[in-house]
Amino acid sequence: MEAELSLFQYNLVSNFFSFTIAVMAAATLFFWLQRSQVAPPYRAAMTITGLVTFIAFYHYFRIFESWEAAYAIVDGSVQAGGKSFNDAYRYVDWLLTVPLLMIELILVMRLSREETIKKATWLAGLAALMIALGYPGEIAEATGVAFAFWVLSMIPFVVIVYTLYVGLSEAVDRQPEEAKPLVNAARYLTIVAWLFYPLVYLFPLIGLEGPNAETFLQVGYTIADIVAKAVFGVLIYMIAMRKSEAEGHKPA
Amino acid sequence: MEAELSLFQYNLVSNFFSFTIAVMAAATLFFWLQRSQVAPPYRAAMTITGLVTFIAFYHYFRIFESWEAAYAIVDGSVQAGGKSFNDAYRYVDWLLTVPLLMIELILVMRLSREETIKKATWLAGLAALMIALGYPGEIAEATGVAFAFWVLSMIPFVVIVYTLYVGLSEAVDRQPEEAKPLVNAARYLTIVAWLFYPLVYLFPLIGLEGPNAETFLQVGYTIADIVAKAVFGVLIYMIAMRKSEAEGHKPA
Repeated sequence: MEAELSLFQYNLVSNFFSFTIAVMAAATLFFWLQRSQVAPPYRAAMTITGLVTFIAFYHYFRIFESWEAAYAIVDGSVQAGGKSFNDAYRYVDWLLTVPLLMIELILVMRLSREETIKKATWLAGLAALMIALGYPGEIAEATGVAFAFWVLSMIPFVVIVYTLYVGLSEAVDRQPEEAKPLVNAARYLTIVAWLFYPLVYLFPLIGLEGPNAETFLQVGYTIADIVAKAVFGVLIYMIAMRKSEAEGHKPA
Repeated sequence: MEAELSLFQYNLVSNFFSFTIAVMAAATLFFWLQRSQVAPPYRAAMTITGLVTFIAFYHYFRIFESWEAAYAIVDGSVQAGGKSFNDAYRYVDWLLTVPLLMIELILVMRLSREETIKKATWLAGLAALMIALGYPGEIAEATGVAFAFWVLSMIPFVVIVYTLYVGLSEAVDRQPEEAKPLVNAARYLTIVAWLFYPLVYLFPLIGLEGPNAETFLQVGYTIADIVAKAVFGVLIYMIAMRKSEAEGHKPA
C-alpha cells in the first residue's frame, strides 16, 4: 500500500466502506425480522442469509477502521499512516460467507434431506477450497506463485459454476412455477457476481497497480460483495416467500 | 468548512446531531417492537420503516463523530480540527433511505403483487437517481456545474411528486375509509419535507455561505430528516394499525 491516493480517492473508498457497513447491517436485520413471515422449512435459509450479511457487516467495520488507520490527512493530502491496510479481512470474510452462500441457496430449494446434505457439503467444501487457494496467491511476492494459486483456485470455481448450472438444473425443474425464475436469477447472479473476484485478482499480475487500480479494486470488491450477499439475500427471501405462499403457509 | 463558527453555533449543531441519534434509535425500536401488532401483510412495511431510521441512526452517529473531529475548541473559540467534516454521509444515507421510504409507502398500501413491484421499482429507482444526480453537484467547485446537477436531480424529483400526487390517487381511492386521510398525509408530508432538500442545496449557489448558513443548513437537514423518516414512519405505523383493524386482525 504505497500508492499515493488523492484525497478524493481516499474519501471515495472510505465512504464506500461506510455505505457497505450500513447496507450489511440493514440487510441482516431485514432478513432476521422477516424470517418469521416465511414457512418454517425456509427459516434456516433466512437465518443463514442474515448470517452472511452479519459476518460481512463485521468485516467491513474492521476494513473501515483499518483503512482509516492506514492513512493520515496532512495539509489536505493523503499520506501513509502508522499501519498498513489489512486486506486479509476480505479473505477471512469470504472463507466464512462464501460456503454459507452456497448453503442458503441449497436450503431455500428445499430438496430431500439426503440431497440437501450432499449438495450443500459439496458446494460449501468447494467454496472454502476456492478461497483457501486464493489467499496464498494474494500475499505471494512472486508473480508466478500468485498466478499458480489463481489457476488452482479457479478449479473449484469452475466446478461450482458447473454444479450450479448443470448439477442443479434438474432440482430447479422441480421447484414450483412461481419460484423458478427467482431461483434461476439467484444461480446466474452468483455466477456473474463471483466472476468479478478472479478478474480483479489478476490486476496486479498484469501490471495494473497504483492509486487508480487500488481505488477501483476496493470499490469493485465492495460492490461485488453487496451484490453477492445482500442482493442475493433479497432473492433468497423472495424465493422463500413465494414458496411459502405456494405451499399455503399463512404468516401469523 | 472554513467557516468560523461561534461556540454557540458549534454546540447547537452538535446537540442537534446527538438529538437525532436518540430520535432515530428510539423510532427504530418503536417500529420493530410494534411490528408484531400489525397484521402480517403490513409487517414488511414496518420492518422497512425501522430500517430507514436504523440507517439514519448509523449515519447520524458517523456525522456526529465527524463533526467532533472537524473542530477543536481552543480558549473557548472554535477552530478547524485535524479532519474536515464529511458531508458525504448524508448522501450515502439518502441513497439507501430515500428509495426505502418509497417502498414502505407502497407496501403499506397493500396493492396487488404486480402493482407493488411495478410502483415500488419505479419510485425507488427515481429516488436513487435523484440522490445520485445531486451528489456530483454538491461536491462540484464551479457554480455552473452545481446548478446543472441540481436541475438534473430535480427531474426525477418532479416525476416522483407527480407519481405520488397523480399516479397513486386511484390506488388511494381503493384504501379503506379509516386509512385514507393518513395515506394522504403521508403523501403530502413526503412532498413538503422533500422540498426542503433542493432549496437548501441552492444556498451556496446564491451566495449564502459562512457560519450562519452552515448552522442553518446542518440544523435544517437534521429537522427535515426527522420529519421525512421518523414522523413519516409514525404515519406508516398508524396506517398499518388502522388497516389491520379494518381487516379484522386481532393482535396476539
